[in-house]
Parts: sequence; C-alpha cells; structure tokens
Amino acid sequence: MPEPQKRIVIVGGGFAGVYAAKYLCQQLSRARLTDVEVALVSRENYLVFQPLLPEVIAGTVQMLHTISPIRRIVPDAALHVRDVQEIDLAAGTLTLEPGYIPRTHELKFDHLVVALGTRLAGASVPGLNDHAIPFKYLGDALKLRHHVVHVLEEAAITTNAEERRRLLTFVVAGGGFSGVECIAEMHDFLRNAVRSFPSIEASELRLILLQSAEAILPEMKPKLALFAHRILAGRGIDIRTNIRLTAVTAQTAITVHKQTGETLAIPTRTVVATVPVEPHPLLASLPCAKEKGKLLVNNFLHSTEWPNVWAIGDCAAIPLADGRFAPPTAQHAVRQGKRCAENIVARLTNRPLQPFSFQSLGSLASLGRHSAVAEVMGISLSGFVAWIMWRAIYLTKFPGWDRKLRILADWFMDLLLPRDITELRIFPPAAVRREHFIAGEVLFHQGDVGDRIYFVVSGEAEVEVNGEIVATVGEGSVIGEIALVKKTPRTATVRVKSDLDAASVSSETFHTLVAHFPGVKEAMDEIMGRHLAADSVRDSTVKSL
Amino acid sequence: MPEPQKRIVIVGGGFAGVYAAKYLCQQLSRARLTDVEVALVSRENYLVFQPLLPEVIAGTVQMLHTISPIRRIVPDAALHVRDVQEIDLAAGTLTLEPGYIPRTHELKFDHLVVALGTRLAGASVPGLNDHAIPFKYLGDALKLRHHVVHVLEEAAITTNAEERRRLLTFVVAGGGFSGVECIAEMHDFLRNAVRSFPSIEASELRLILLQSAEAILPEMKPKLALFAHRILAGRGIDIRTNIRLTAVTAQTAITVHKQTGETLAIPTRTVVATVPVEPHPLLASLPCAKEKGKLLVNNFLHSTEWPNVWAIGDCAAIPLADGRFAPPTAQHAVRQGKRCAENIVARLTNRPLQPFSFQSLGSLASLGRHSAVAEVMGISLSGFVAWIMWRAIYLTKFPGWDRKLRILADWFMDLLLPRDITELRIFPPAAVRREHFIAGEVLFHQGDVGDRIYFVVSGEAEVEVNGEIVATVGEGSVIGEIALVKKTPRTATVRVKSDLDAASVSSETFHTLVAHFPGVKEAMDEIMGRHLAADSVRDSTVKSL
Repeated sequence: MPEPQKRIVIVGGGFAGVYAAKYLCQQLSRARLTDVEVALVSRENYLVFQPLLPEVIAGTVQMLHTISPIRRIVPDAALHVRDVQEIDLAAGTLTLEPGYIPRTHELKFDHLVVALGTRLAGASVPGLNDHAIPFKYLGDALKLRHHVVHVLEEAAITTNAEERRRLLTFVVAGGGFSGVECIAEMHDFLRNAVRSFPSIEASELRLILLQSAEAILPEMKPKLALFAHRILAGRGIDIRTNIRLTAVTAQTAITVHKQTGETLAIPTRTVVATVPVEPHPLLASLPCAKEKGKLLVNNFLHSTEWPNVWAIGDCAAIPLADGRFAPPTAQHAVRQGKRCAENIVARLTNRPLQPFSFQSLGSLASLGRHSAVAEVMGISLSGFVAWIMWRAIYLTKFPGWDRKLRILADWFMDLLLPRDITELRIFPPAAVRREHFIAGEVLFHQGDVGDRIYFVVSGEAEVEVNGEIVATVGEGSVIGEIALVKKTPRTATVRVKSDLDAASVSSETFHTLVAHFPGVKEAMDEIMGRHLAADSVRDSTVKSL
Repeated sequence: MPEPQKRIVIVGGGFAGVYAAKYLCQQLSRARLTDVEVALVSRENYLVFQPLLPEVIAGTVQMLHTISPIRRIVPDAALHVRDVQEIDLAAGTLTLEPGYIPRTHELKFDHLVVALGTRLAGASVPGLNDHAIPFKYLGDALKLRHHVVHVLEEAAITTNAEERRRLLTFVVAGGGFSGVECIAEMHDFLRNAVRSFPSIEASELRLILLQSAEAILPEMKPKLALFAHRILAGRGIDIRTNIRLTAVTAQTAITVHKQTGETLAIPTRTVVATVPVEPHPLLASLPCAKEKGKLLVNNFLHSTEWPNVWAIGDCAAIPLADGRFAPPTAQHAVRQGKRCAENIVARLTNRPLQPFSFQSLGSLASLGRHSAVAEVMGISLSGFVAWIMWRAIYLTKFPGWDRKLRILADWFMDLLLPRDITELRIFPPAAVRREHFIAGEVLFHQGDVGDRIYFVVSGEAEVEVNGEIVATVGEGSVIGEIALVKKTPRTATVRVKSDLDAASVSSETFHTLVAHFPGVKEAMDEIMGRHLAADSVRDSTVKSL
C-alpha cells in the first residue's frame, strides 16, 4: 500500500474514537479530501455498548449483541487492531505492538486524536489487580458471568459451611451507574439461577454494594438516587455507603468506613471493581498539559502546545463554558468525536474552528426486574416507565440496525424462556501470578494438596507444624516447594503475619521451569534441603522431649 | 448432607453420561428406590450438542445455544462439576480434583458408570497439543471463531506478502463429520466476513481439508461422500485425501502422502484438529480388560471383572450381535445410557439384565450454504432437502424446549442479518508453553522485538549474526535472553537445524521469575555473560579482519 498524502490517526476504539472516525470519513468525503487517510487504532475490533454489559451477566442479552463491529460502523477507515506502545508527538509517529511477526509497526500521523479512555486504577488498592474482576470490556462481563455460575457450582458441593458462605457472598465496588446496574443484574440472575440448585436457598445469597460517597448514583438527583437505593435495598441488596474498598485477596474484601475509619473484612470469592478509574497510562508519557492525568485541551478540542493533537472522551479534560470539565459519558464522547472531526477538516481546509459545547440530555440507570430511574430533559422518572424508556433509548442509540433487531429478539426471548446457567471454563488459572494476602489469612494448611509455590515479595508469614510456630519467613522467601517437588500433602500451615504480597507459580509450570530453566533445579534443591533439614531437626527435638 | 444408603456415580457429562443419569433418576423413582443417590461428575456443567458447534464458528447459532445445562436435564442428580483425579475400583471410591479449598474430594460408589468419552490424541503428532486448535468443547469453538477473525485482522494490516498468505490459509485435519462440517462453516463465515475487510479479496482465502483415508465421510455411503466432496471442492475448498498431518508448528502444517510418502509444508497460522482421538487417559489406570484402550464390557454393559462397573459411550468397547463394536455416535450413547440405567436398577431389584442392541437410524453431515448429505432409515438424500432434514432432526434431538426455540430464533435471524465479525481477545498467549519447530524455521530474526525466551528440550538450531553462522545450539541451551534482559532488539537470527522442541516463557513472566525465583537471576547473568563474551570475541575478530 502506498503511503497516503496525509493521515489522521485516532487512538482508542470507544465511543469518542469510533464516532470521530465515522464523522471524519463523512466530512472528508464531503470536502472531497480523498488523499487523507483515517486510521483507527483500537485494542478490540468492536465498540462495547457499556450500558448493555450488565445484561450479559443476567443473560437477557446475548454476549455478542452488546458489541458492534467497528469495521461495519466505519467501513472507510483503516482499522489497526493493536495496542499502542509509544506515541512520539515531535516526530509525528506512533508505534504499535507487534502481531505474529515480532516487529513493531510504525504509523506516521499529520493529526492525532487521543481517545484512549480510562482504565481501572488497580494499583491504588492492594490486591485489586490480582483478585478483583473489572467491569469494562466484554471479556470482563463474560468472565464475571461464568465466575458467578462457578461459585454456585462450588457452593453446591462444598461441605465446609464457612466456605459456602464465602462462595455465596458477592461484592461490587462502586455505586455509580456501572456498579448499580451490575449488582442489580447479578441479583436478578442469581435469584433465578439458584432455582436449579436444589441445595442452595435464595436466602443464602448475599450481595453487597460498596459506595465511598454518601449515596449511590451521585450523578443523579437525590430523589431518584434514593428511589434506586430503596428499590435495591428492598430486594435484599446490602448497600453500604461511605465505605471504601481498601484491599482484596483471593478470599476477602477489606473495607473501611470513611468517617469512623472502622475496617471490616468480608469473606467472599467474588469482588467486582468498577472503581477507581484513571486515564490510560500512555497519557503520562505525552509532553502535554494535563488536568488530573487527563490530557488538557482547549474548547476546540486540541492541545495548546500541539495544535495537531486532539483529545476527546474520558481521557480528555475539556473545558465547558461554565468553567467545569465535560463529564465522562458516552453522550459527550459522541458529540466530541463529531466536533473534533469537523475541526480537523476545518483546519485542513483553512476554515475557522468551532468550540465544543453540549448540554447533557439526561441520565438513566437500570435497576433490573423491569425497573429503572431516569432524568430526561429535566423530567424525573422511576419504576416501570423509566425502565421502558431505558430500553427504548439505549436501543435507538445502539449502532447498527442488525444489532438493534438482535437485542430486541433477545429481550423478547427472555420474557419466554428460562435463563442460562452454563459455565464456560475458558479462563484457566494463571501459570504465574501476583497474589495479595492480609494478616491472618493462610497460604495453605498442613495436609492440603500442593498446587502452587510462592515467592514472598513483601510481608511476613509464620510456618506452623502441628499447631506450633516453627519459623517466620519474609521477603525473598520461597514457600511451598516441598509438596510440589515430593508430590506430598503440605507439610506445614503458612499463616500471614503482616500483609503479604507474593508471586506464585502453578505446579505444572513449576515443574516445566525446574526441568528446563537453568539454575532453578539447583536453587530449589538447595532451598528444599534447608527446609527439610529444619524439619528433621524439629522432628528429632520432638522425639527427644 | 448425610451419606445416602447407596450411590451410583456416573463419570462423564457427554450424551452417554447425562442420559444414563436422566434414565437412572426416572427408573429409580419408578422403582421407589428413594435411598439411592445418582451422582454425576462432569468437567463442565453443560452438555455440548456437537453437531451445532460448527455453527458457532459461522455465528448462525449463538454460542450458549449449542449447549444445555445439565442441571436442567437431570434436576434430581447430584452434579459435581469437577475433573476426576483417580478411580479406585477395589475400594469403590473416586477422587475428584480440589476446588477453591485445596483438598481432594472423595466419593464412594456402589455402582460406577464410566462415560468419559475420548480426547484429542495430541501427543501422537508433534506440535499438535502446542499449536493446533482442537474442536470438541464449546471453548474450542469459541477460540477458533475468534482466532479466525484475529488472522483476518492481522492480514488486513500486515505488509509482508508471505505472512499474508500464511494468515489467509486455514487447515482442518480430519475428513469425518466433525472436520467436514467445521471446514464448511469456516468457509461460509470467511467468505461472508471478508466483505468487511476492503483490503482482502475472497479469492485469497485458502481452506484445506486433510483426510488420511481415501475419501471424506467414510462413515457414509460412497455416493453421498462423493456428493459432499464435489460440493465442497466446487466452492474452492482444497480437499486432500490420503494425506496425514504429521507435525504442526506455529507457522506450518506438515503433511505426508500415505502412499507416496511425499511430505509437504503448508504455511498457515490456523490448524484445526478433529483427529486423532483416544479414550480418556484415566481409563489406562483401571484394572479392567480393554479393547484398543476402550473399557471392554459385555453386552449388558458392565465389566466382566467388576460387575458394578459399567461403561458406555465413546470410551467403551461394547460388543454387538454382529461381532462388531458399537460405533461412537450420540445415537448409540443415548441408548446405552438408557439400557445401562435399566440394568443397574434391574440389578438393585434382582431382576434379569437385558443386552444392549441398537440399529443406527442413519447419519447426517451439513455442508453449509443450505446443503447437506443424509442417510436416514436406508434412504440417501443430498442438497437442500437433506439440509432441511439435518436442521429438523437436530432441532428435535436438542435437549430442552427453551433451547430449541432459541436455536430456531438464531436460524431465523441469520436469514435476515449480517454475520458477526467481532473478535473476543479473551485468550491471552500462555506465559509458559511448549513449542515445536521444524528444520528451516526461525525462532526469531536479528532485529526482531524480544518477546520470549526459549529453553531447548531437543533438537538443534544455528545462530546467525549478519548472515554468518556463529554457533550451533542444542538440548539444554537457553536462547533469546539478551533481548529480554537488555530490552534491545534480537542480536542474532536463530534457525532450526533439526526439528526442535522448546519450552518458552513470555517476557513478562521471565522478568517476574528473574525478580523472585531464587537462582534464576544468577543463572541468567552467567549465561548472558557467556553469550555476550562470544559476541565481543566475534566483534573483535570482525574488526581485525
């Protein structure tokens, strides 16, 4: 392919990026600028329609119907399904991650539209990246949906009452639109699903919504937010306001009360995180003015330092006439995409730029079970009418008439048919992963099956044999190699003394590494030798008593 | 839960196992044997309806509609969604894999029904387990579907013509029902999907079906098989009979002609394997008579050595009246499940057992694009009528009326709407994996991005710097650490000299291991020191020339 005369590159395949591409293609064709290429770089080849994601959990909308193929929305843009590795504003180039062939791919640009959105700020809460399920992409919704069925299946056969309670407790962090809609749909799904599990009572299900603000849905009028709160609480959802998630482990969610500072450990196998979010990490590398990490632009949507660099959507700080910044909603993103496209074409054709301004049309939150809250053009609605409006509005907003029809059909089928309770086991446990533990938790109990080996990154743990503490281990220690190497049950219990971070490796991968990774076998033999020697010293001490 | 008086355990959640459970629950209730528990152990909580799996690739049936929740089919059985770790026939117990709590779970049985089915015999073809996509479970179909979109997306942006051909070549191994239906649906999907890829011509797609027998569909009458062959060949599918797959790498499928012994390397990124299959590996551990690895039973469906051990479905060798063994089809499995259930209840109530006998009702293969071949009750059909029959028969066979309705709706929507071309990136590349290479392939080229480190398990490779061979490396060698440690491009090209097996570790995992796994850093430093010293010797030699 010959290089085009000019190229506009858009990075990010959310509403802002995709609609910018769509309007750019339209405007360029209208202005007969045929030698300008529009390239869109997106990590997925589809646009996610976030408001429908919670329905994937419930199964009321089929998974693939909540997304729309970008190629069908913008057939004339050059789509690069890749992650962006680096952006060099001065050189006017960006570097994309390699595909099958391990060479990076460079793309020159004359104009760059940054629409990279936000990500879950996992690093700010210990254990969040390791143990919580985010709720942003379709893959997340799919994972959550099947995880929820998985814990039901586990609860059905476990004989341990404490573990059963843990499995049947579900925590969602974040009381905004995403968190509220997510827990509402999870609740609907779970109540429905447990009917197929004769050994589980619906009353055993515990759903907890954590909200750090004083009320849920702070974006809405207090009256509507209160209505939503009452509806959800009335169904048995435990809404905890002024509560922040402070740490997550494989078996616990730790929360703190914002006023009293009181902490609470909630035993659970399911933590869904919709907060906190942060702008895409690549933004930090751009030499532009920022506002709370977001790329600061003027009201024409371009950077003041780099007039050919534009930013729109959730990763952009866009000043409005009232002095505030544009809120991070899809409505705004779509309009920003349009204005940005118009302004780029104005620049190319030497016409004056137009400022961005937009008045929100309103907001909606679905509460499940044919109920919702809505504020549309100043009118507040709640209950069934709001729910009908929720469905009607989102259906008309969904890009592509084929998808609209499919979603309608799904909703219709849901009225007639029982919900699906199948579990797709397509997410194998990671071979190598980071794990977070809080004081008091155990890595494993004496007698357990040896499934992983742990390398302590920070924190301390105590090793107990037959109830007696025999050692304290800390940073740099190796834990649990004996059961893996000798294929015996765990010879000790390891209990965390102070919050501990570890890297863990699955048994299978450990054996592959020992067999092939030079130095590993020798190091393991040496460490195990020391551990076993300590054991035998203890044994002889015990015997001599 | 108190232990029941008697327990019948069924292992395997395919047609044989699920229908045995269903009929057992019915028969026990009819015989008023209320103190007998039916426990079903299955690795998935759903029954896969295999004939519809190819439609997941095409997108004509929604993914979750090809499976049916086991709990809805057999609400009265105790379902254990677990893998079986061990079966002890003498003790009458089986051990299940642990769940969240790392303790194995033991289940006592009075009667055991073995219905574990078959698996892809990956070990018999070098590289098959590492690089081919199997086609048996729903997860496989989902993976294949999204892989196919992925290679299209890659083909759309690659600038390397050779790589483009490789990406647009699709190989399916196995010319039985599964392979034929799979390639037919892949073909339909690809022809349809490329319309959304302006830079890819439909004529560039190459689909190759490998069949080791003399003809495809050997289970059908030669006339019908030939019809199917002509239909598929007429669409441009390259059918290669008498050809066996002998090795698979990340970039090549190697085939051999059964008569001439001629070998051929097909550059491709997509190999789907439906053959060869073997009985579940657990069967080998059972002290029972076997027939080609299958558990040999008498015509009452129990082992002659263990009268309380029954075997049905594809993992059982069941003698028929004509001296042959029952074929591995769903029709037979369902009838075996029923007869097995009747015989177990007969045994419990001291009534005589009945032998298994069943005459196949016929067979069907869909060829995509509204065409099929069918042999039903002695009548041969082909084309559109056979296709309508294919759909009608499988629809009636599908368990659950709700699923029937959903499948019907999917088929209806498919008539109206364009097919989906979204790619779910939910299958990240493995952190640690085995890889197979054939002579002539390169592990990486000088200048490539360093993405993985390799440990040679067997075979030899040559290291080239600037086109000159500087070293030969073999078993036990470490390859590629420099680019990972120093974060530089590859300093050499590594070309395979004789077929090579390696374990490889991703860059991210490598860095985690170096940071935390004792011994690794030292070993890596030592190895890299040697490699760099060799480099500098070479550099000085070159300079001195």
